[in-house]
Amino acid sequence: MTIIQEKTIAAKVRSDFPILHQQIHGKPLVYLDNAATSQKPIAVLDALRHYYEHDNANVHRGVHTLSSRATDGYEGARDKVAAFVNAASRQEIVYTRNASEAINLVAYSWGSTLKSGDEIILSVMEHHSNLIPWQMLAQRTGAVLKFVGLTDTEEFDFEQFKSLLSDRTKIVSVVHVSNTLGCINPVKEICAEAHRYGVKVLIDACQSLPHMTINVQDIDCDWLVGSGHKMCAPTGIGFLYGKLDLLRSMPPFLGGGEMIADVFLDHATYADLPHKFEAGTPAIAEAIGLGAAVDYLTNIGMDKIHAYEEELTAYLFHKLKEIPELRIYGPQPNADGSGRAALAAFTAGEVHPHDLSTILDQAGIAIRAGHHCTQPLHRHLKAQSTARASLYFYNTREEIDVFIASLKEAVEFFGEVFA
Amino acid sequence: MTIIQEKTIAAKVRSDFPILHQQIHGKPLVYLDNAATSQKPIAVLDALRHYYEHDNANVHRGVHTLSSRATDGYEGARDKVAAFVNAASRQEIVYTRNASEAINLVAYSWGSTLKSGDEIILSVMEHHSNLIPWQMLAQRTGAVLKFVGLTDTEEFDFEQFKSLLSDRTKIVSVVHVSNTLGCINPVKEICAEAHRYGVKVLIDACQSLPHMTINVQDIDCDWLVGSGHKMCAPTGIGFLYGKLDLLRSMPPFLGGGEMIADVFLDHATYADLPHKFEAGTPAIAEAIGLGAAVDYLTNIGMDKIHAYEEELTAYLFHKLKEIPELRIYGPQPNADGSGRAALAAFTAGEVHPHDLSTILDQAGIAIRAGHHCTQPLHRHLKAQSTARASLYFYNTREEIDVFIASLKEAVEFFGEVFA
Repeated sequence: MTIIQEKTIAAKVRSDFPILHQQIHGKPLVYLDNAATSQKPIAVLDALRHYYEHDNANVHRGVHTLSSRATDGYEGARDKVAAFVNAASRQEIVYTRNASEAINLVAYSWGSTLKSGDEIILSVMEHHSNLIPWQMLAQRTGAVLKFVGLTDTEEFDFEQFKSLLSDRTKIVSVVHVSNTLGCINPVKEICAEAHRYGVKVLIDACQSLPHMTINVQDIDCDWLVGSGHKMCAPTGIGFLYGKLDLLRSMPPFLGGGEMIADVFLDHATYADLPHKFEAGTPAIAEAIGLGAAVDYLTNIGMDKIHAYEEELTAYLFHKLKEIPELRIYGPQPNADGSGRAALAAFTAGEVHPHDLSTILDQAGIAIRAGHHCTQPLHRHLKAQSTARASLYFYNTREEIDVFIASLKEAVEFFGEVFA
Repeated sequence: MTIIQEKTIAAKVRSDFPILHQQIHGKPLVYLDNAATSQKPIAVLDALRHYYEHDNANVHRGVHTLSSRATDGYEGARDKVAAFVNAASRQEIVYTRNASEAINLVAYSWGSTLKSGDEIILSVMEHHSNLIPWQMLAQRTGAVLKFVGLTDTEEFDFEQFKSLLSDRTKIVSVVHVSNTLGCINPVKEICAEAHRYGVKVLIDACQSLPHMTINVQDIDCDWLVGSGHKMCAPTGIGFLYGKLDLLRSMPPFLGGGEMIADVFLDHATYADLPHKFEAGTPAIAEAIGLGAAVDYLTNIGMDKIHAYEEELTAYLFHKLKEIPELRIYGPQPNADGSGRAALAAFTAGEVHPHDLSTILDQAGIAIRAGHHCTQPLHRHLKAQSTARASLYFYNTREEIDVFIASLKEAVEFFGEVFA
């Protein structure tokens, strides 16, 4: 069963990804840095090229044929993204450059109403993109940051979270899946608990959207942000989902063309959603590429992708046990690979993660070493940095075998060096 | 001489632009909407595709081969942009999504120091992107907007500008080339005059950068913004140039990964320039595409492009005289086509510009109709909207002939309708 499904997905899709079929230092590329960015299928690259070779024009502003085609492509992609996350309305999807910009948009726009003493709840595992905007907002307004810590299994401490909620809390902004711990946070329960206090919730879904079905209405989050480049789409495009009434109530963030209705020298009225938040010529081709990526993922099936990645997770963690020197962060997966993301951040005693990554690169294996934009979490874990292997649906068991063999060799080599 | 140069440039480059070789409504496409966005040469599309098929990875954060290649491509493109505008340092170039974002960055970051009563000088011909961010800043700070009007020839009123400057003035933000009037503003003289009062100057170079050599050190502007998609680059990329010390003194704008040095739960230190202003995963492929566009333009030669466009301008305005019903906005070109941009915004009596654009589209001709994101200027000109034909170096005299013939026919047709 397991082997059949692996052949069904990874074997079927690998030819869609030209970049995977190359040699690095004379070895076949094994790309295990998917939590940093995903690779792009031909369907997405073809959508980009087709746009530029046939339809390229500025959107919304023209009546000529190319402008109509460009507008249709750009807005059609918005429909696809809205359907992908089950938004109630296409107006709830605002394009941004990346998830960071989406969070900054909320922090600048909605956040402008915060007052001194208002509380913002984050967790210690947040990516810098879901931390710095709130630090800056706190500096501007006098709001106070509160942090949810970790349980013994290095997961989101839900009980502590509940104890932090109060009438002073104005917003909870937490990650869905940690890019370092790999834990899957109970976002639906977090929203329900926060809403009991009338508190808004923003979900950073960068590490969940590419890997599982996301239903914003079921989660009942107030905002959710996603990053295109991590889900097979081009760079330069991400999005903010927000509940319609909430987005309507928020003042504009960036000013410029596209986001206006009537402009006078001394004042202006603003366009309706979603354009109110999209100033200037947007990332047109990139949005169309995001739509193509959503089509591509949907055609495979997010549930199938998720199930296959659980199998890979089970196999990865099974194999990682062969290297006892490793300290792996975050929760263990269940026996079937469920319960955590298909990634592993780890250290190996005194070995510097950068050295591990450099040695593995010589074997064609791309893993990441560093703080993965979660410095405070690393401090919390008392790790200067970690190495991280992160999988996607085009990865195979064979690649995990190559990775584990090289990692074992590297750890043994350094073990002798440090002995 | 004229004919030889036309053949040298447009004839040579047209095969580089796949999109131009198609039929619209059964007629060859004549793309005259270049002030809205330019088309992309194969060299740029190939650079995008090559990046995604060989080098795609996240930048700055990894030690593996793909990450190094992606970082080299991304930062190498910055060197190209810096050289293109003759910046003193590569650190003076900050990537943004578009020029609008670049202006918002300055308005939010540098503008946060403004106080009630401080004055901001703009002109009535500003694009909404160089107006709305300052309106929003004025609302936040109590700063006051002042506007430079037009001369009798519908150009920047330099004498009035000088009379507006005072000790209360903190910034002048003006467009280099108007996207509606086509006038070329004396930015070097504007900077010199403003600097006598210690006033900072931002130049919106969206309509000049694609068409002429820009030397930021010669202009001596404090900031300059550009838009990639208007200069043969992909959508989703633009840039802010700023003098090094000035950018250094500005607080960060967007918070997130990439723009930090050390992050703690309650505070952070920020990265050095230019990364301080580039939060989150950047538009990597788009920056590389911008670099390829800069290479492409540089290989043709900006001076040659400018000279050829002047020839086209002379020819365009010569032919437009054949239609006496037209009211063309902005200054007349000199006999050799110099003195204004290669575009013409016009009205034809009672004919609605949208109707003109729609009719011309049936003949395969793409012109724009509307307010071109300069509503206040249109109010000033007492025009609800205008039609606009805007040229680039791949346009030909033959295309101008087709445009003029169709325009003449349309104006005559509507003339009979309204008669």
